Amino acid sequence: MLEALKKEVYEANMELPRRGLVTYTWGNVSGIDRKSGYFVIKPSGVDYDSLKPEDMVVMDLEGNKIEGSYKPSSDTATHLELYKKYEGIGGIVHTHSPEAVAFAQAGMDIQLYGTTHADYFLGAIPCARNLTTEEINEAYEKNTGKVIIETFETRGINPLYTPAVLCKNHGPFTWGCDAFEAVHNAVVLEEVAKMARYTLMINPKVLPAPDNIKEKHFYRKHGEGAYYGQ
Amino acid sequence: MLEALKKEVYEANMELPRRGLVTYTWGNVSGIDRKSGYFVIKPSGVDYDSLKPEDMVVMDLEGNKIEGSYKPSSDTATHLELYKKYEGIGGIVHTHSPEAVAFAQAGMDIQLYGTTHADYFLGAIPCARNLTTEEINEAYEKNTGKVIIETFETRGINPLYTPAVLCKNHGPFTWGCDAFEAVHNAVVLEEVAKMARYTLMINPKVLPAPDNIKEKHFYRKHGEGAYYGQ
Amino acid sequence: MLEALKKEVYEANMELPRRGLVTYTWGNVSGIDRKSGYFVIKPSGVDYDSLKPEDMVVMDLEGNKIEGSYKPSSDTATHLELYKKYEGIGGIVHTHSPEAVAFAQAGMDIQLYGTTHADYFLGAIPCARNLTTEEINEAYEKNTGKVIIETFETRGINPLYTPAVLCKNHGPFTWGCDAFEAVHNAVVLEEVAKMARYTLMINPKVLPAPDNIKEKHFYRKHGEGAYYGQ
Amino acid sequence: MLEALKKEVYEANMELPRRGLVTYTWGNVSGIDRKSGYFVIKPSGVDYDSLKPEDMVVMDLEGNKIEGSYKPSSDTATHLELYKKYEGIGGIVHTHSPEAVAFAQAGMDIQLYGTTHADYFLGAIPCARNLTTEEINEAYEKNTGKVIIETFETRGINPLYTPAVLCKNHGPFTWGCDAFEAVHNAVVLEEVAKMARYTLMINPKVLPAPDNIKEKHFYRKHGEGAYYGQ
Repeated sequence: MLEALKKEVYEANMELPRRGLVTYTWGNVSGIDRKSGYFVIKPSGVDYDSLKPEDMVVMDLEGNKIEGSYKPSSDTATHLELYKKYEGIGGIVHTHSPEAVAFAQAGMDIQLYGTTHADYFLGAIPCARNLTTEEINEAYEKNTGKVIIETFETRGINPLYTPAVLCKNHGPFTWGCDAFEAVHNAVVLEEVAKMARYTLMINPKVLPAPDNIKEKHFYRKHGEGAYYGQ
Repeated sequence: MLEALKKEVYEANMELPRRGLVTYTWGNVSGIDRKSGYFVIKPSGVDYDSLKPEDMVVMDLEGNKIEGSYKPSSDTATHLELYKKYEGIGGIVHTHSPEAVAFAQAGMDIQLYGTTHADYFLGAIPCARNLTTEEINEAYEKNTGKVIIETFETRGINPLYTPAVLCKNHGPFTWGCDAFEAVHNAVVLEEVAKMARYTLMINPKVLPAPDNIKEKHFYRKHGEGAYYGQ
Repeated sequence: MLEALKKEVYEANMELPRRGLVTYTWGNVSGIDRKSGYFVIKPSGVDYDSLKPEDMVVMDLEGNKIEGSYKPSSDTATHLELYKKYEGIGGIVHTHSPEAVAFAQAGMDIQLYGTTHADYFLGAIPCARNLTTEEINEAYEKNTGKVIIETFETRGINPLYTPAVLCKNHGPFTWGCDAFEAVHNAVVLEEVAKMARYTLMINPKVLPAPDNIKEKHFYRKHGEGAYYGQ
Repeated sequence: MLEALKKEVYEANMELPRRGLVTYTWGNVSGIDRKSGYFVIKPSGVDYDSLKPEDMVVMDLEGNKIEGSYKPSSDTATHLELYKKYEGIGGIVHTHSPEAVAFAQAGMDIQLYGTTHADYFLGAIPCARNLTTEEINEAYEKNTGKVIIETFETRGINPLYTPAVLCKNHGPFTWGCDAFEAVHNAVVLEEVAKMARYTLMINPKVLPAPDNIKEKHFYRKHGEGAYYGQ
């Protein structure tokens, strides 16, 4: 079932090591079929070298495994919460890519310092708060999703315009209209985080870029007035 | 038309990912034929993997497309302004290479700290000012070119001796006598920016190199008294 | 003798340059056969390019060479001390991987800043003290092992839960249940050290991660309640 | 003439781009035949891709070209001064490798922070002073050699025990018993410089390593009591 989506999610997973975003098994990609309400995700702790499209696990939005011989990624419940809350999300990625992790470990948003950032994200990448001990004990992965949602809702950020978050002391999640776009955004996030770190190194007092250039670049590539690309 | 130039500009574009200067489609190279007054530029947002010489777009210096099935790079108007103003420029490159972007985001010139820099650029790489909201709204890419020119003119910098600029909160443009030299200078700029960042890390109070070594190295490779190379 | 273990230790040694952890011959891996009490280790100063499984040297826990045409690694006595003290260790790695070396040279523990660290190590990676001149002169490599053990014993750290140490002004040792796991931990340590350095760069006042997330992640992958992987 | 040495110097030159030490043509290696008093050096500004053993230039110690169709490296006079002064030097390398350049640009010695450094260099890598305008105008490359020698003589450093120097605002020279060892030392210097930068990043107040560990490691690999390797 969902063989095309499995293949797509498999290919998107394989793009992570190719792009240098994962060490060992530290990452996972999922993609959803909105018609059936099922999503497909990487199995937990399986080496990328031996991964096959048919190893992908099919889940429903209640957290039941629908198909697959493996256990799904341990982060499955986080993906699920995001799919349930935001209809516009079609694919999700989690990695421990080091530049984004550094900001998560530092407990800092990635400020928008330039157009590389603004071409993809309409503002700072938010760093979500730590979970409480109660939240961790009750349901760690599910509550990670809840805290991500809380971050976007309380700060008034549109997750479709800023498709990335940092979980404090943990690492990034990114998303997109499908699994490939989610991986694309994970690659861009890592590049943007690196540029932000370099910028802070050479000018620790640097301010975010002005709003006018942020909006110019974002809307040059997104929305009705976009004119970048073919 | 201009098949040789198209091939050259294509090859120069392909050098960008080979040299690690671009992620996805974040860069463009152009080259001009001064006899016809036409220049050739990469199409907007096309993957390097699928790019072909015949995809290059031919433009005139009024901004009209002369030939090509694709839309030209969204930065075409910036290239055009530089070609119009400076006769000595034969090729132009724009990238988001991370070390140069960091200085652009930090809003800082890249000071000349050593001979690697002085072998190619006779002084600091200037960081141009931000555009005003009016300039952005009126014609963003054209005015980016105008502000680059303003930077060189008001600061009295010879663009043929310092063939690179940083656009604030954006990234670098470099140029040269043709598309290949422009790419060569983009590679050198990234290396020089990296060395400058490293230098600032280990000695935040470092001063620029003395003028005598700057001039010795620049004129060892450039101008009438040059004796580097064959 | 011990041909299977020699092959395993050879393969584990070859993983070091593949993972970018060694320059030239700066690393060594050993593995022990607890039944015979013999361990197998890389010969000293032999290039990885020309290394073969049969070059591995077999040693006993008194420091006698049992088999092998080469001299064993100059760090053999350090490995030996750790094998003698900790029954649970089946493989040991020493490298000069630059990110871990930086913390060793700085004389600092690698604090636990996030889940990448906590997935493998239940607390800070300790930096052992310098040897005294007497300890160096008496038996440098053996006393390096003694000082590592002193570090874990006096600080009350379980070496099976935190399978890595930094030797001050020198570099890291890691270990595991066998040679492959020891190499795996060496790769993770380098990645974790890099993330810690990046974190300190962007937030010099950063605090370690809370205990609740540290314990959640460590025990998600280790011990009876583990549910990561298949 | 000197075909074996030409081949050796050619191979040593080709090792520079393979080891990631040079961009474009920014490096050169030479080797000397002490019997004839001739040395062999890379031609100036020739691409590594098209370099051939027969392109190497043969020079005498008066600076006369003895054989070769190309002009020798523009840094030839620096090599010559070092060969004339120090009989024990058999090969010399100059690069613009970025980590070593950063210390040269910062005008700082590379302090000995650990055993990776001490395995090869018995103390800090000295940063030589800037040349005066008179020295630059009179004979830049020759006086670069003179200032390197002055640095070792006035600071009482043995160039055979510390086979590397930083020329202020320029970059490193390294040497060894032959061209290969000189390249080996160039690779080690770059790695050691990187580790020193990382160390300074995480602990700006770090002190050099104690003398006892410095001497232990240096003499473990060098001199009569050495016991590292086979």
